[in-house]
Amino acid sequence: MYVYGRNVLREILALPDGRVKVKKLFFTDQENVDRDLKRLQEESRRRGWKVETTRPERLFDLCREKKNQGVVVDIKDFPYAELEDILSSIDSKPSSTLVVLDQVQDPHNLGAIIRTAAAAGGDGIIIGVHSSAEVTPAVAKVSSGLVFRLAVARVVNIASTLEKLKKRGYWTYASATGGENLWEIEFAPRSVLVFGNENEGVRRLVRERADHLVSIPMEAGVDSLNVAAAAAVFLYERRRKAAAG
Amino acid sequence: MYVYGRNVLREILALPDGRVKVKKLFFTDQENVDRDLKRLQEESRRRGWKVETTRPERLFDLCREKKNQGVVVDIKDFPYAELEDILSSIDSKPSSTLVVLDQVQDPHNLGAIIRTAAAAGGDGIIIGVHSSAEVTPAVAKVSSGLVFRLAVARVVNIASTLEKLKKRGYWTYASATGGENLWEIEFAPRSVLVFGNENEGVRRLVRERADHLVSIPMEAGVDSLNVAAAAAVFLYERRRKAAAG
Repeated sequence: MYVYGRNVLREILALPDGRVKVKKLFFTDQENVDRDLKRLQEESRRRGWKVETTRPERLFDLCREKKNQGVVVDIKDFPYAELEDILSSIDSKPSSTLVVLDQVQDPHNLGAIIRTAAAAGGDGIIIGVHSSAEVTPAVAKVSSGLVFRLAVARVVNIASTLEKLKKRGYWTYASATGGENLWEIEFAPRSVLVFGNENEGVRRLVRERADHLVSIPMEAGVDSLNVAAAAAVFLYERRRKAAAG
Repeated sequence: MYVYGRNVLREILALPDGRVKVKKLFFTDQENVDRDLKRLQEESRRRGWKVETTRPERLFDLCREKKNQGVVVDIKDFPYAELEDILSSIDSKPSSTLVVLDQVQDPHNLGAIIRTAAAAGGDGIIIGVHSSAEVTPAVAKVSSGLVFRLAVARVVNIASTLEKLKKRGYWTYASATGGENLWEIEFAPRSVLVFGNENEGVRRLVRERADHLVSIPMEAGVDSLNVAAAAAVFLYERRRKAAAG
């Protein structure tokens, strides 16, 4: 898998050894590369990774993206987390927030939600294995590399995952039209925010498992927000209230 | 200009006569079109607009987008608003919110910000004529057609526009790192929210004109949000506080 971009490499460099298997790195061979890129190249060599400099056209051939910022990283696979590992790693936190995506299909939205969740202090993202965007190089780039920082788990069944989370003490809040006003929600210390597909929203079977259906107030005649915008509003309302105690 | 998509047409249909010059509409000639599309076609005919049904391949040729949802609308130009007209139309409102974009370049971000601003009750968007995404068919689609509902004005100079707005009683809040905490901001009844370029943020000359530099709290090590996510958080924090009185 050829991921690309400087923030992506920065986040990979920040990982503990072995979390991602780096097969090889490709840097642009253009003469006037800036210091930032040189430093990233040196750091990569210090980690003992194979580094090659090559023509910009070859970088494009590898990752099929012009905006690769002069660096392409060949990694074995994206290191998905196990849900169980996410849960046990945050078990002792007084407050935690998970994000569940029910068939979000646009890679741009998935990447943006990962980035916002990492910024807002989310503890992990859970996506389905079916009819969902998965982590691709484009998702990694849009996430500004934060997909390597925030744990992402894949599950077979979203509805039964919500049941499981409820048994672990989580309360679930699904974004849906006609729900309670987001501003009036008091989030539980263990909160799960659920967002649905770009066109259909959260599926009925998933909605029925949620403890609360929640809506963002909107002007008359506007039906919905883009799912990444909705997630940003939810995640920051959650963070604001957690900070306010 | 060939705009496309059903919500785009819905918003054009909702406009007063003459606001947009509709030259012609193209609908898919596939047999099994759903009722929704049929209704849109009938409504368009009732408005006296020229309607043609044609092959899906031709729709693609016209707008270069596969996800055109079976409808392409040929409009003369995008009807930008004049800043002065926006200001006088909201002069008597007790509370108003304008969004200024300083060199936002990604059409996806511009469209998403327009959609969120319309949902959150913003009164208009101001963009620069230089180095900025302008309203394209892709922007119209991403905005879910709301670009035809929310006024968008173009100005030559963003910095002097902020000066002008301040003279009209507006207070300006620019998104920037190291600024005041968004949650502690008390917005003025007339507020202008300023967002900058995807890489560089708000330019220094524009920042210097702002009454407040404002930051969204973030986890250590995360530098910034995607500008459309940041705008969503700002716009809804503004709305929440305005609603709370």
